[in-house]
Amino acid sequence: MKKIAMIALGCALGFAAGPSVAQDSALTQDIMDHADALGKRALASSLTEDVITSLTTEVGHRLAGTANDKKGRDWALAKMTAMGFDRVWEEPVTIPLWHRGTASARVTAPYQHNMAIVALGNSIATPEGGLTAEIAHFDEYKDLVAAPVGSLDGKIAYISFRMENTGVRGAKGYGYAGQARRNGSVAAAKAGASAIIIRSIGSDDNRTPHTGSMNYAEGVKQIPAGAISNPDADNLDRIIKSGKPVTVELNMTSHSHDPVVTYNVLGEITGTDDPEKAVMIGAHLDSWDLATGALDDGTGVSIMMSAAKHIIDGGKKPKRSIRVMLFAAEEEGLYGAHEYVRAHKEDHKDFDNTILGAEWDSGTGRIINFAPGVGSTSLNVVREMGKVFAPYGVSTLMTNSAKGQSDMSALGNAGMPAINFGMEPTNYFDFHHTPNDTLDKVDMPAITHNAAIYAMFAYMAATVDVDYKK
Amino acid sequence: MKKIAMIALGCALGFAAGPSVAQDSALTQDIMDHADALGKRALASSLTEDVITSLTTEVGHRLAGTANDKKGRDWALAKMTAMGFDRVWEEPVTIPLWHRGTASARVTAPYQHNMAIVALGNSIATPEGGLTAEIAHFDEYKDLVAAPVGSLDGKIAYISFRMENTGVRGAKGYGYAGQARRNGSVAAAKAGASAIIIRSIGSDDNRTPHTGSMNYAEGVKQIPAGAISNPDADNLDRIIKSGKPVTVELNMTSHSHDPVVTYNVLGEITGTDDPEKAVMIGAHLDSWDLATGALDDGTGVSIMMSAAKHIIDGGKKPKRSIRVMLFAAEEEGLYGAHEYVRAHKEDHKDFDNTILGAEWDSGTGRIINFAPGVGSTSLNVVREMGKVFAPYGVSTLMTNSAKGQSDMSALGNAGMPAINFGMEPTNYFDFHHTPNDTLDKVDMPAITHNAAIYAMFAYMAATVDVDYKK
Repeated sequence: MKKIAMIALGCALGFAAGPSVAQDSALTQDIMDHADALGKRALASSLTEDVITSLTTEVGHRLAGTANDKKGRDWALAKMTAMGFDRVWEEPVTIPLWHRGTASARVTAPYQHNMAIVALGNSIATPEGGLTAEIAHFDEYKDLVAAPVGSLDGKIAYISFRMENTGVRGAKGYGYAGQARRNGSVAAAKAGASAIIIRSIGSDDNRTPHTGSMNYAEGVKQIPAGAISNPDADNLDRIIKSGKPVTVELNMTSHSHDPVVTYNVLGEITGTDDPEKAVMIGAHLDSWDLATGALDDGTGVSIMMSAAKHIIDGGKKPKRSIRVMLFAAEEEGLYGAHEYVRAHKEDHKDFDNTILGAEWDSGTGRIINFAPGVGSTSLNVVREMGKVFAPYGVSTLMTNSAKGQSDMSALGNAGMPAINFGMEPTNYFDFHHTPNDTLDKVDMPAITHNAAIYAMFAYMAATVDVDYKK
Repeated sequence: MKKIAMIALGCALGFAAGPSVAQDSALTQDIMDHADALGKRALASSLTEDVITSLTTEVGHRLAGTANDKKGRDWALAKMTAMGFDRVWEEPVTIPLWHRGTASARVTAPYQHNMAIVALGNSIATPEGGLTAEIAHFDEYKDLVAAPVGSLDGKIAYISFRMENTGVRGAKGYGYAGQARRNGSVAAAKAGASAIIIRSIGSDDNRTPHTGSMNYAEGVKQIPAGAISNPDADNLDRIIKSGKPVTVELNMTSHSHDPVVTYNVLGEITGTDDPEKAVMIGAHLDSWDLATGALDDGTGVSIMMSAAKHIIDGGKKPKRSIRVMLFAAEEEGLYGAHEYVRAHKEDHKDFDNTILGAEWDSGTGRIINFAPGVGSTSLNVVREMGKVFAPYGVSTLMTNSAKGQSDMSALGNAGMPAINFGMEPTNYFDFHHTPNDTLDKVDMPAITHNAAIYAMFAYMAATVDVDYKK
């Protein structure tokens, strides 16, 4: 039975005072009360902590396409089955398979230092036995891009830019600095370099360098690419400042194999009224292989699975389905997400049944705001949900441009309405993609809070009778 | 010319108010004024920063007996010569030579995890190809000591005790926790173990395990010994709690060579009146090999060398000599210090000419107090020095039991009067003996402050006419 979505409340949302909720709202008091009960249930539970502890302790890393990836999927299937999901399944995704191998780097002149280095994901190896070459230093990616063809012949390009901990979108933050990692090898190869080393894209001062995916381009020579830790980059920068030629010996054995098939893992709480339609809450199950992928994205996996379990235990089924989506091969470039879009648009023709999506791939930050990206009519109902979140310290942003975070952005960009949850600042980029991404870094009360928010959100979004595209 | 040491001021020291300094004090206003000028000179200088930057950038690690140890000594000799020391020389020390080799450890059952591990200094290798054995877990060292003979046959002993950051002497601090590292292998071997793994003796949560020296005992089988990082120990503890047998594969190639000769490095500002007698300010030049030994003990080296340089540049020679002592092979067990005591007592018969000593081997902590360990007559003069330190935020402790810190304790225990400088709490044990002991961890204003204190101290102590034994 359809109800008329209530008229906008303007900017008064998030405050208890003001006109009472219109009786004709699609978001009934019953729905809101049950959502609040789910939130309280989640906050009183240790489940989110238990799930991430189990994943990181029993499985460990989950590098896409490896035996550990399979272990992670088996763990997720078994866990969701045991939790009482109505349906648990996998959907295939073909991905590149990359082997990290070993990596070492050593300054050989004018001074001698071993450096802490990791291969960037997708990098080829150095020639057997390694290569030794003079360093060509660039302050940042755009300077390397400007290097003339041939100017780096026989040299190792080095980008020393240090990211600032201003989040993904800050002017000197992860997104900007990350150009060096993602595209530096192409720019360096175009100018003739035999390899590229970058300062880790990370905000810490540990000798635990940050890996992450890098790209090659058609028609441009592939060269090996590695990242050194911030303290090693500091030291290299000091040596470069001495003005003497600096040479580095680099030895990497990383390499790619033929593509393999892995799987997105899905678990469903089947809706009572319109089960084909589903709200998707997601995270990525894969991780890099240097640690146990606790922050990236064990927290997301545990938040989604525990949020769903609280809904199951809450005893009221949603009207539409809730799908927990554990994406495959996010780290290599959102492979699982892109394949979901492709398969459900082209093969199954049911992409529109994924009516709304939200992901968590933001580590251990406590959710403090809620940003919709829905149709202008449904926006009012979505904003009403914010009233239920408000007592939990989550404010509703007055924007309506969310396209989904991480994997979910692939679905958002393909037309799915989306929600982005924002968080308080964290030291995520101290640990992201490093050997330090381990369970001790997780703020258990914060992720328990987040599971409460996701449980409330998923239940309300799947139960309220509204079309998020409208 | 001797002056009568002034009578004790009781407990009023460190305060500007109170009776004026007795005119008959050995510590004349001239000496105090010049010391204060040296302190101000030091605080206005970047020299302490420059010296530690040069050492860590140009030399790197200084593992005793290695080529890098030699590089460090050559650097120190050249630097002190260039600084204008009156005399710079080396004194031989025979030390064990140990090679770190490689170390890896992997949990193989019931789950699989690579662990971040380092060999403990002096450890032997595992059998070629490594060993795989069940873990026998102990909460702490004393529990392992209590293990019956034969109870660990064919097992790897594991001590999970986590140190608390309460400094060297705290109830669960470095000294207490360190028993596992220093003597765990002997206890484990007595009970039949084939190897020992300990949780790192460190207060951080980085996957940068802490090395440090360990001992074997006559008549007890030597077994390999390694330390895993705190996050790895946390994970191993969780696996052990599952109650299933836990097996670990350990592979280490560390080994000892025949003893070699290295050297203590000394630099002297020769005294005007009684040059044979010297105040010694010291630090250890050697370091572990995992990083550049910035905190341990690059800070001490730079503090001592820059303090002396400020005295040289200050233009007033001390009456007795000031010796900067850069000890050899502290990490392996104060080899340089012990040999100094032996050689100067037995060979040169001049040990008593080292009239007072103070070391810095405490990283980057700002000096906040000054603790003497001198004769009861000279104590009053030494406490008067505290008045000069007071405006610099350094209080004088009313104890008189200092025996010297680190290497200097070997001299203090052999009868040399000593001074201990105390510091504000730091995160020293987060980085100590790890790959993270790099220049970025150094608080430059703090070590500049410390150099000011050492410059003032050394000048006053060498110039004031008093016998610290009396």
